[in-house]
Amino acid sequence: MTDINAYAAKEAGAKLEPYSFDPGAIGAHEVDVKVSACGVCHSDLSMINNDWGFGQYPMVPGHEAIGEITEIGSAVKNLKVGQTVGVGWNAESCMHCAPCLSGTQQRCQTGVPTIISKGGFADRVRVQDIWAVPIPDGMDAKSAGPLFCGGITVFSPFVDYDLKPTDRVAVIGIGGLGHLALQFARAWGCEVTAFTTSMDKEDELKELGAHHVANSRDADSMKKLKGKFDFILSTVNVSLDWPSYLATLRSNGRLITVGAVDKPMGIPAFSLISGGKSVGGSDTGSPDRVAKMLEFCTRHDIKPMVEYFPMEKVNEALEHLESGKARYRVVLTN
Amino acid sequence: MTDINAYAAKEAGAKLEPYSFDPGAIGAHEVDVKVSACGVCHSDLSMINNDWGFGQYPMVPGHEAIGEITEIGSAVKNLKVGQTVGVGWNAESCMHCAPCLSGTQQRCQTGVPTIISKGGFADRVRVQDIWAVPIPDGMDAKSAGPLFCGGITVFSPFVDYDLKPTDRVAVIGIGGLGHLALQFARAWGCEVTAFTTSMDKEDELKELGAHHVANSRDADSMKKLKGKFDFILSTVNVSLDWPSYLATLRSNGRLITVGAVDKPMGIPAFSLISGGKSVGGSDTGSPDRVAKMLEFCTRHDIKPMVEYFPMEKVNEALEHLESGKARYRVVLTN
Repeated sequence: MTDINAYAAKEAGAKLEPYSFDPGAIGAHEVDVKVSACGVCHSDLSMINNDWGFGQYPMVPGHEAIGEITEIGSAVKNLKVGQTVGVGWNAESCMHCAPCLSGTQQRCQTGVPTIISKGGFADRVRVQDIWAVPIPDGMDAKSAGPLFCGGITVFSPFVDYDLKPTDRVAVIGIGGLGHLALQFARAWGCEVTAFTTSMDKEDELKELGAHHVANSRDADSMKKLKGKFDFILSTVNVSLDWPSYLATLRSNGRLITVGAVDKPMGIPAFSLISGGKSVGGSDTGSPDRVAKMLEFCTRHDIKPMVEYFPMEKVNEALEHLESGKARYRVVLTN
Repeated sequence: MTDINAYAAKEAGAKLEPYSFDPGAIGAHEVDVKVSACGVCHSDLSMINNDWGFGQYPMVPGHEAIGEITEIGSAVKNLKVGQTVGVGWNAESCMHCAPCLSGTQQRCQTGVPTIISKGGFADRVRVQDIWAVPIPDGMDAKSAGPLFCGGITVFSPFVDYDLKPTDRVAVIGIGGLGHLALQFARAWGCEVTAFTTSMDKEDELKELGAHHVANSRDADSMKKLKGKFDFILSTVNVSLDWPSYLATLRSNGRLITVGAVDKPMGIPAFSLISGGKSVGGSDTGSPDRVAKMLEFCTRHDIKPMVEYFPMEKVNEALEHLESGKARYRVVLTN
């Protein structure tokens, strides 16, 4: 077995640098994936900077990896060498705790994130068999990586919080996650509004699926949207004027955040009580959910819009993402 | 038609005093109810004090009224003179706006609360036909008033937020609303925990339906409850340590407030994202929902625990409620 050649942050906040390591013998339920492409997500930045406090260094980020299976452990039954798969946020789940047994393996009580076990900014990544999900025939593998974290993160709340095709849905923040959410919502059959502060993107957002584009910095247009939406999906990680968004919800409306907002969200109880509204959160999804999403993408021709960088330019790619200029997701290729 | 003899606050914050008024000719869809008993709710205090800013004076509070129908308008088809009915928060709905047409008449866009049209601290109260809901045979009418606001307020979220008999539910704040929530949750088939700061109530709370009683002021016992509940119903109107309650929720758990909490609820996005949790609100319920609740109460022998005051002692009754000593609801009788 050869070493894995990766890019790692040696300590919190450090630039990535080449880093090789021996992954050891493959476990019975593990598979090795030869990385051909790997998306770059804001969570990679947060983890490199240890914003969430559970970073481990040297850290190999990358959790939107695509590639061919090169080796499988002795107990692997669901995959074969040569299959093209994707790997997302999760690398390992115990398969016996309550979340695992109830179909939410991404919430495994002792689960290990891909970034912690060593991620996809590498020539090879190793994960548990259930967490390598086959890319369907006909899907462009090179650009598919962002579906495995950005995609599933915005797909899951539509399922879990019961978005209906008759609903009016709004998406706040149209970046790596939001541009996929627009496509999902449109294919779902909904009326779709994009909330953005970059009105120069308007035409592009409509091509992605938005029927309407609203400038969230314009108090007047916010007022006109009072009571309009059944569902708001927020992808941003900064504090917003939550009461004014709650006012745009209809009866029984829900505002779901997938962005790890920096400050506690100040939610007036009255905004929830009048109209039976709620504010929820959502994480990623189980392998079964990921497979459903991939099938939905294939049926509706949903794909990430990406910009490619060669893997060795990983630091430039991270800077491009951080600058907010990526349209809409950066993908590293080997 | 004789005058209605009531008790009114002449201005915001005033003591109630006798007040008679001519309600005018009865409308085609209205009914007059001779009040035999009327519950006293915290919302009466909030409205008297104009805490919510939409009070109108002279104000006749009271929105948990029970009595016999003495007159019906020319278009009333669902009720007869002599029937015993209850009246809650709502007195009038337009019956043609979206909330009305979708079964949530309590959210009518031009609806009128009973307290605004003149409430139940009176010898007679007049409401629209749909808002006088018949008391089922076998139910004790005298003590039933509190079901019409306190009761429906805690019953509705169990329906709307899909409480399951297999769930573990906790109730925060065991007063007029909470003591009914415990009974509902027990009859629902759930495992029931009462959060209280008055551990001297423990035996009584268990009689009302709690399997467990937890002291919410004890940080250690809060920690032991980590990940336990599927559903928390909060009936209090003061700020709590919301993150510590969210930590007691399981995957997909929801915390629903029916209390109009005084300050915006500070909800960390991470507390929602990890585990797909949500925080929601709930108001009262439609007449159909009220009828379902009354049927459920009859089937499960659920009844308010009340203390009676004669109607003319309305100010003493309000003081008793405000003191926090009512166990668990005060009811005025004529």
